[in-house]
Amino acid sequence: MQKAAIGIDLGGTAIKGAIICETGVVGNVTRVPTEAHKGGQQVLDNILGLIEKLIKDSGREASSFIGVGIGTPGFVGGDGTILGGAENLPGWKGTQIYEPITKRFGLGVSAANDVTAVALAELMFGAGRGVKNIVCFALGTGVGGGIVTDGKLYKGSHGMAGEVGHIVVETDGILCACGQKGCVERYSSATGIVNMAVEMASAKDGEDTDFAKAVRKNPAEVTSKMVYEYVAKADAIALKVHNRTCDMLGRAVGIMINALSPDRVVLGGGVMMAGDIILDTVKTYAARHCWPAIFERCEIVAAQMGEDAGVMGAGALAFEQFG
Amino acid sequence: MQKAAIGIDLGGTAIKGAIICETGVVGNVTRVPTEAHKGGQQVLDNILGLIEKLIKDSGREASSFIGVGIGTPGFVGGDGTILGGAENLPGWKGTQIYEPITKRFGLGVSAANDVTAVALAELMFGAGRGVKNIVCFALGTGVGGGIVTDGKLYKGSHGMAGEVGHIVVETDGILCACGQKGCVERYSSATGIVNMAVEMASAKDGEDTDFAKAVRKNPAEVTSKMVYEYVAKADAIALKVHNRTCDMLGRAVGIMINALSPDRVVLGGGVMMAGDIILDTVKTYAARHCWPAIFERCEIVAAQMGEDAGVMGAGALAFEQFG
Repeated sequence: MQKAAIGIDLGGTAIKGAIICETGVVGNVTRVPTEAHKGGQQVLDNILGLIEKLIKDSGREASSFIGVGIGTPGFVGGDGTILGGAENLPGWKGTQIYEPITKRFGLGVSAANDVTAVALAELMFGAGRGVKNIVCFALGTGVGGGIVTDGKLYKGSHGMAGEVGHIVVETDGILCACGQKGCVERYSSATGIVNMAVEMASAKDGEDTDFAKAVRKNPAEVTSKMVYEYVAKADAIALKVHNRTCDMLGRAVGIMINALSPDRVVLGGGVMMAGDIILDTVKTYAARHCWPAIFERCEIVAAQMGEDAGVMGAGALAFEQFG
Repeated sequence: MQKAAIGIDLGGTAIKGAIICETGVVGNVTRVPTEAHKGGQQVLDNILGLIEKLIKDSGREASSFIGVGIGTPGFVGGDGTILGGAENLPGWKGTQIYEPITKRFGLGVSAANDVTAVALAELMFGAGRGVKNIVCFALGTGVGGGIVTDGKLYKGSHGMAGEVGHIVVETDGILCACGQKGCVERYSSATGIVNMAVEMASAKDGEDTDFAKAVRKNPAEVTSKMVYEYVAKADAIALKVHNRTCDMLGRAVGIMINALSPDRVVLGGGVMMAGDIILDTVKTYAARHCWPAIFERCEIVAAQMGEDAGVMGAGALAFEQFG
């Protein structure tokens, strides 16, 4: 029987689960509501129910799986307790997630931050195949990250490693929710791109363009996708936003390359749907923020994992620990 | 017989060697001239001669050692070839150092950057004992560093990890020899401290102090030690230099804590001879550049290794690989 793990990706609105084998997802990804508003115990019960359903639907014995992997918002301690950082899941902090799963299904559990786990998915199934050291930046609503060293997900002693979104890249830069100023997340996340677009489109001293007019007309409707539609038309203000996004991300990428000398830096997340233009521009900026000898030994590549990245990363966690 | 390794610390003027056991140096540290001007082959011959002498003086068989560890300036590839970054050793780049040692003594060799290796010495013998994840900053002529993840020295795929001195901490800051602007090395190395002292002591608009007068009188004689003698007297301009040094170092420390969530950050090197005042001030600044939940789980401590740190780090490399 093929080696398989159960992967669970916990999100704010839905929990996704799937059977993962060494080549990817087996069958379908199953979703159930998170019911976050009902508190931590309900969320845990929903995870337990989903695992039970996945095992039943697979037609296999629970004991035939190598283990359960879980990607969750926030930080996970070494013993499987949620230590914090999951603000959209009230009551999730403090929940012990390993023990009830092991008790009910007799399976070992390995959990990590959901974004961090995606780095492991890239290593096992995607843009990190064939190398041992990668740093991933996930450009979504915020900027998350994950670090793989010597072929293993590097969680840090308290499951908190990989907070690359809060690398400060601009002295006295834009204020971040974390309390710092100039975090890369303020410039290179979807939120950061939209905020910069609104600001640059409204600047009195700047030139005016079709993009700026469209932004001013309906600032609440601006998306990073829209910014990149105008970048494709070479709109000067959209390009200005794009360059600032890539400059700042290039700085953070350069810092991580200098510090960790990885084989590859993987850029993923919704913002990267804009394609090669971000990748190419970030490469140019990162080269200015890095030792040449280190930079030339590192590739900067696009993530390959699609919408199932989270659940595959969760499965990869189980393979890493129990495979 | 006690497990022992041969540790070799290659410097620009001297090569230090010692027998290292699991509790530290056995006997004395032996020094021979590097003779860097005679080229890479001569340097290698001098290392071979030193290993031979160490084995002979120990009264043990070569085969009784677990292996040889070498700390060297520059970057070492996985196969033991010097890849570069050792500008003060002409002809050292390109030298294969594993094969001749193994051929002559029948021992395995593990080499790494000399500053990086000190991180492993701190883990095995010093400020990193009892934990698994540490980041070291070495504040000397420049700023070097070393990273230990999950109890192992993290070298990166090409032996180039740990270049924390070139983390950019100030946008459009002081120009660095590496080509970037605002590298932490420009502010927190002995060189950086001296340069800032000379600049601040000469500033026309600033206040004048005993320290500023002493600096202007003999700018060529300023040392970081002198700066800290005046910091102890609460001299306003010396304190200004000190605060800038610690602010910038705190930024780099905060970045590394956010990214790697280590158990401890270890500050070492000659600049740290100034003592607790640097440690305490860096802690204050680093807290402002870090997520609180991550920061509160990380200690910032002083290095414990003294002048034999290099040779002990080299021995630790051998223990890590062959012990």
